[in-house]
Amino acid sequence: MTLSDDVLGRARVVDTDDLKAYYEKLGHRGAGALWTVANEIEPWYPQPKSVPMLWSYRELRPLVLEALGLVSGDDAGRRVVMLVNPGRKDISASVGLLYSGLQVMGPGESMTAHRHQAAALRFVLEGQGAWTVVDGQKLKVGPRDFAITPNWTWHEHGNEGSDEPVIWQDGLDIPLVNAHDAGFYEVHPDLYQKQGEVVNSSLLTYGHGQLRPYGFQAWDKRYSPLFAYPWDRTYPALLDVAAASDGSPYDGIILEYSNPLTGGSVMPTMSAHLQLLRPGEATKAHRHTGSVMYTVAKGSGHSVIAGRRYDWQEGDVFCVPSWAWHEHANGSADDDAVLFSYNDFPVMRSLAFWREEAYPDDNGHQTVE
Amino acid sequence: MTLSDDVLGRARVVDTDDLKAYYEKLGHRGAGALWTVANEIEPWYPQPKSVPMLWSYRELRPLVLEALGLVSGDDAGRRVVMLVNPGRKDISASVGLLYSGLQVMGPGESMTAHRHQAAALRFVLEGQGAWTVVDGQKLKVGPRDFAITPNWTWHEHGNEGSDEPVIWQDGLDIPLVNAHDAGFYEVHPDLYQKQGEVVNSSLLTYGHGQLRPYGFQAWDKRYSPLFAYPWDRTYPALLDVAAASDGSPYDGIILEYSNPLTGGSVMPTMSAHLQLLRPGEATKAHRHTGSVMYTVAKGSGHSVIAGRRYDWQEGDVFCVPSWAWHEHANGSADDDAVLFSYNDFPVMRSLAFWREEAYPDDNGHQTVE
Amino acid sequence: MTLSDDVLGRARVVDTDDLKAYYEKLGHRGAGALWTVANEIEPWYPQPKSVPMLWSYRELRPLVLEALGLVSGDDAGRRVVMLVNPGRKDISASVGLLYSGLQVMGPGESMTAHRHQAAALRFVLEGQGAWTVVDGQKLKVGPRDFAITPNWTWHEHGNEGSDEPVIWQDGLDIPLVNAHDAGFYEVHPDLYQKQGEVVNSSLLTYGHGQLRPYGFQAWDKRYSPLFAYPWDRTYPALLDVAAASDGSPYDGIILEYSNPLTGGSVMPTMSAHLQLLRPGEATKAHRHTGSVMYTVAKGSGHSVIAGRRYDWQEGDVFCVPSWAWHEHANGSADDDAVLFSYNDFPVMRSLAFWREEAYPDDNGHQTVE
Amino acid sequence: MTLSDDVLGRARVVDTDDLKAYYEKLGHRGAGALWTVANEIEPWYPQPKSVPMLWSYRELRPLVLEALGLVSGDDAGRRVVMLVNPGRKDISASVGLLYSGLQVMGPGESMTAHRHQAAALRFVLEGQGAWTVVDGQKLKVGPRDFAITPNWTWHEHGNEGSDEPVIWQDGLDIPLVNAHDAGFYEVHPDLYQKQGEVVNSSLLTYGHGQLRPYGFQAWDKRYSPLFAYPWDRTYPALLDVAAASDGSPYDGIILEYSNPLTGGSVMPTMSAHLQLLRPGEATKAHRHTGSVMYTVAKGSGHSVIAGRRYDWQEGDVFCVPSWAWHEHANGSADDDAVLFSYNDFPVMRSLAFWREEAYPDDNGHQTVE
Ligand SMILES: [Fe+2]
Ligand SMILES: [Fe+2]
Ligand SMILES: [Fe+2]
Ligand SMILES: [Fe+2]
Ligand SMILES: [Fe+2]
Ligand SMILES: [Fe+2]
Ligand SMILES: [Fe+2]
Ligand SMILES: [Fe+2]
Repeated sequence: MTLSDDVLGRARVVDTDDLKAYYEKLGHRGAGALWTVANEIEPWYPQPKSVPMLWSYRELRPLVLEALGLVSGDDAGRRVVMLVNPGRKDISASVGLLYSGLQVMGPGESMTAHRHQAAALRFVLEGQGAWTVVDGQKLKVGPRDFAITPNWTWHEHGNEGSDEPVIWQDGLDIPLVNAHDAGFYEVHPDLYQKQGEVVNSSLLTYGHGQLRPYGFQAWDKRYSPLFAYPWDRTYPALLDVAAASDGSPYDGIILEYSNPLTGGSVMPTMSAHLQLLRPGEATKAHRHTGSVMYTVAKGSGHSVIAGRRYDWQEGDVFCVPSWAWHEHANGSADDDAVLFSYNDFPVMRSLAFWREEAYPDDNGHQTVE
Repeated sequence: MTLSDDVLGRARVVDTDDLKAYYEKLGHRGAGALWTVANEIEPWYPQPKSVPMLWSYRELRPLVLEALGLVSGDDAGRRVVMLVNPGRKDISASVGLLYSGLQVMGPGESMTAHRHQAAALRFVLEGQGAWTVVDGQKLKVGPRDFAITPNWTWHEHGNEGSDEPVIWQDGLDIPLVNAHDAGFYEVHPDLYQKQGEVVNSSLLTYGHGQLRPYGFQAWDKRYSPLFAYPWDRTYPALLDVAAASDGSPYDGIILEYSNPLTGGSVMPTMSAHLQLLRPGEATKAHRHTGSVMYTVAKGSGHSVIAGRRYDWQEGDVFCVPSWAWHEHANGSADDDAVLFSYNDFPVMRSLAFWREEAYPDDNGHQTVE
Repeated sequence: MTLSDDVLGRARVVDTDDLKAYYEKLGHRGAGALWTVANEIEPWYPQPKSVPMLWSYRELRPLVLEALGLVSGDDAGRRVVMLVNPGRKDISASVGLLYSGLQVMGPGESMTAHRHQAAALRFVLEGQGAWTVVDGQKLKVGPRDFAITPNWTWHEHGNEGSDEPVIWQDGLDIPLVNAHDAGFYEVHPDLYQKQGEVVNSSLLTYGHGQLRPYGFQAWDKRYSPLFAYPWDRTYPALLDVAAASDGSPYDGIILEYSNPLTGGSVMPTMSAHLQLLRPGEATKAHRHTGSVMYTVAKGSGHSVIAGRRYDWQEGDVFCVPSWAWHEHANGSADDDAVLFSYNDFPVMRSLAFWREEAYPDDNGHQTVE
Repeated sequence: MTLSDDVLGRARVVDTDDLKAYYEKLGHRGAGALWTVANEIEPWYPQPKSVPMLWSYRELRPLVLEALGLVSGDDAGRRVVMLVNPGRKDISASVGLLYSGLQVMGPGESMTAHRHQAAALRFVLEGQGAWTVVDGQKLKVGPRDFAITPNWTWHEHGNEGSDEPVIWQDGLDIPLVNAHDAGFYEVHPDLYQKQGEVVNSSLLTYGHGQLRPYGFQAWDKRYSPLFAYPWDRTYPALLDVAAASDGSPYDGIILEYSNPLTGGSVMPTMSAHLQLLRPGEATKAHRHTGSVMYTVAKGSGHSVIAGRRYDWQEGDVFCVPSWAWHEHANGSADDDAVLFSYNDFPVMRSLAFWREEAYPDDNGHQTVE
């Protein structure tokens, strides 16, 4: 499977003194010889710097909580422990061009408002009092709820609970925005937004996805008008679909959080999924372009990524880089396992970069190293 | 408001003997003089042949039930009392190019399967045992449920209840299909379809509109993959939206039954709405192109259509022709009123025929004759 | 091929005295029994009232010219000889829901400005001085040029030639607009439009279809920004495509006049084609939903429509109703034949009414009666 | 205009020994503290690593020609002098995530066929015999012609001229593809493609942009079916548009090479423009996200980019990084100047990253350093 570069059609110039002198002349003029880098910049198949990685919630949770006493929210801006891929420290990415972090807010704490070009999403890991205000709309979110903070929306958040901290996972496209030289940031001029009277109004208005307000509530944004997708609606949906369908051989019963006005992804740069691995289910391996961050929402099991096994339990986070083989297994014969994930698939599709293939051997299962 | 045709820019030829002779020569060659019909075929504003009309359920119900004993389902094909607009008897239309009928099925009765180019929708008026099989998928529907039978899908239906008849309202675009010379019809070769095991599978799979199956359940049809929209989901949606929004000045809280994969209308030729008139609510008048059939799903009240008042109660059906002023009022100060309606708005929009305007006088209320 | 209605799945009720009494009761309540009309309104396949028809230019031209002396342009509004399908006299249609007419303007004559919901297109048959002003833009058009007057655009036209009349063919969707109760009409308040300085500016700006103005000339209309498609560009295009392609088995080298900003049809209700039948070419037969009006732009030949042969020469107009088999043949072994045509295909596609099939027998050729 | 990070809403934690110890613990678990990098990765506005740059054709041309004698085409794969932005040497980019190079082919030379995920475009600078075969279609291109080689299309090229070399500019999205871990590459199994008989067949078929093949030549690709846009069509288009329009205040008469089937950009990741600066014209400054590579197709003049003046003449290449102010001036009072450019605007729009603003001061003109 390793392809040789020593073939007609690839660059295979042997450097000579003349050529080295030539390269130096080119360098002085802001130029270079393509053949010196051609094979590297046009590889046979994707060569991500990101590596597969699992972040153990059991290990990270104490460190996240420790931050509560180390920095104030006001000083930190946001009190977040980033999940950094060993291969992407230079750009603070978790995988590909996606960022992730675990944010902690103490009881009664709140943060000031800002906005940025980077789009954000949240998946709540623990704690009862979390809220966020997105463009003036207050959302309350609890464990396993999913919420979005689309690009350039004003946002601030806090924890109105009285005794326990909130930890949620942030997912942002910060490295993507930076790769494209497109980042903007603003602090709210009043530090805090004016809030509408109705809490979770987008959920009331758009949360019945197959019914659409007609002739009012006009919406022309590129992102979903629905900002919160609570677990008490998403988990029953998984069970309903499981009652009617076999799902995907590679992902079990997998649903995409969608913009109810278009059926498309919640934001133009990131999409998110919730998937059910039924008791005993082990999916087949496939690979595709695009990077994925997974969070274990419920249950335990393991995934095999690029031939290596990663065992996971609730709260753990792991990633699958572009074009890496991957398959998932529920570790229990009795209980559901549910994975939340977010990805850059909308980007891959917009740019016509999407490719996908099934693992061809051994009935779809990788050999584990 | 009446515009004269005796102006420059309109046809105003005075016929002479010479002209009459000329017209006759034209007639012999499959031709005619435009100016003899120009003002009629290019009117100042729409001149529907359809008139506003209310069909009283209290009056029609006995007649509908009487049909049970008069014709068998097999002989009738479908046992349906059509609602015929006095101005459109020639094309069996209820309003504009829309057809409607009240279909009755006795306990235990079932009909054979067929399909046609005309698209159909159903709104259940009474009875508990109704079912329909649409392209192999069995749907059970109860009072106030909405269901669709998109064009060219196989369908058959029946009443599996043991003691009471089912009456539902059919809405079809038969006159539209015929106006466009596009009608096709087929009887199912086996008379009955093979049915899938799961009842209401589209509701399980697509009924959580803001979550979309990913990587399975591919859908490339021009109509909604969701075939049933039960009242126990649609009525709570109305209440939720009412809690977060003031709705439309012309329609109250009005929701469009939508294709969850696109956010668009359920079918390319017809859309349907469910609207809540809050206790005491009286909407303002507007008018628009497009024809609408309303059914009173809940409560009572009245509508003013083209300056005339129509009182309605549950089960009643009424129509608003294109470009007629209309406004609605809930007759109760304590209870909700809910109107179901279907229309040809998707056609009006596709063909760029859509226009809308607010009633300009008297704070939006028509003078009732 | 004739299907019987005496089968299970079709209505086949035998009327009795009881039933007749019942029908009468229904009639008094604005209702009827579906089974009395079901087979008629849901036919096995389309039953157009329009019939195939050829209008001979040689025969009609003298009558068209005669109108010059019979009515003034100001009195007629437009001096047009309509082409009326024998089956659609009630709605002044040429075929299906399409209207067509031959308009004549004497040297130096001009008409006042108006606008209407109906969309119009023109194909020039003879004369050198024709002009039209569409929303302030002056277009000059000569023989075989195609131009559009989209719905609700102000328009006026005339003949600035000094000695010969202009005859052009009008194509409008008037019957379509009326079938949908959507017609509006206005006379220009100043009777004449203000004109821009540049003639044929849309042709200069958008006539190089594969190059698009960027950052200026914003366009959000539902119709093409290009209003004129002159023969000196369209005929060479036919020849170019013929050099690279075999074209369609049913139509030869056929091109659709397109909106250069979308690649779609020029207007949302009507599209137009120009097609080349190469010397000696005889196409295979097919049929489809949708109605078509053809004009012979160049050459001579014949078409077989619904099993009957129609011979045509330059200037002749003929129609193909929905679902009628049709095939075309160039009558010359040496010269090109070119057909212009317009149709309602955009409607058929928008409403999901489009169907098409190839003639299955005799290598694709119909038996001529 | 420089914004301080020492404000509430930005990270402003002062590091302590405790914190440093904490950071180290995080580092051991694949984690980090967001506040240590937050201000850097979420800047107030874009901070491109790319700098404005002009590559002088007069200086580079001899070096490009020198490559002819230094490496064979077969060994180099492609004999290309890359244009490397001083700030993006790490990824071989010319600006942003765009690559460019000057490719030279000697008389009679040809290259083998391959394909890759990266999309390519060409703008011919000199030489008469250039050809390329794209997915089996042979294109011949001369000076100032534009051609595309969309992603994953097979391509090979050569120079069939007998005495002079060809130099063309390549534009590719290689860095973009790599940033997204999406690169694939294949050498053609037969080394050379089978070619169709007709040269420039896409130009014959789709080169009359406002006319579209109907019912044949189906196309479902994400890129333009038209592969070549020759100067003898594009330059007259500029002149035509100039006769009817004032163009854009920031760009003069600027046209986008478009996909004639959609009106959109030629490929989903890159678009290209041709713009005319009329004699004496000096545009106003604006800035926007997205990166642009310009090539001087005709004439001479200068651009002011981020406050610095760059003089240019025919063949020169220069770049404008994201969010840099820029304005252009034709240096001649008598002759046209024409700039060709390509960009990543389709990406910026797909990802909702597009922003644009006019230079607010001094009547739109920057102060030159
Ligand atoms: Fe933020
Ligand atoms: Fe996957
Ligand atoms: Fe039916
Ligand atoms: Fe209305
Ligand atoms: Fe008109
Ligand atoms: Fe045809
Ligand atoms: Fe290449
Ligand atoms: Fe610019």
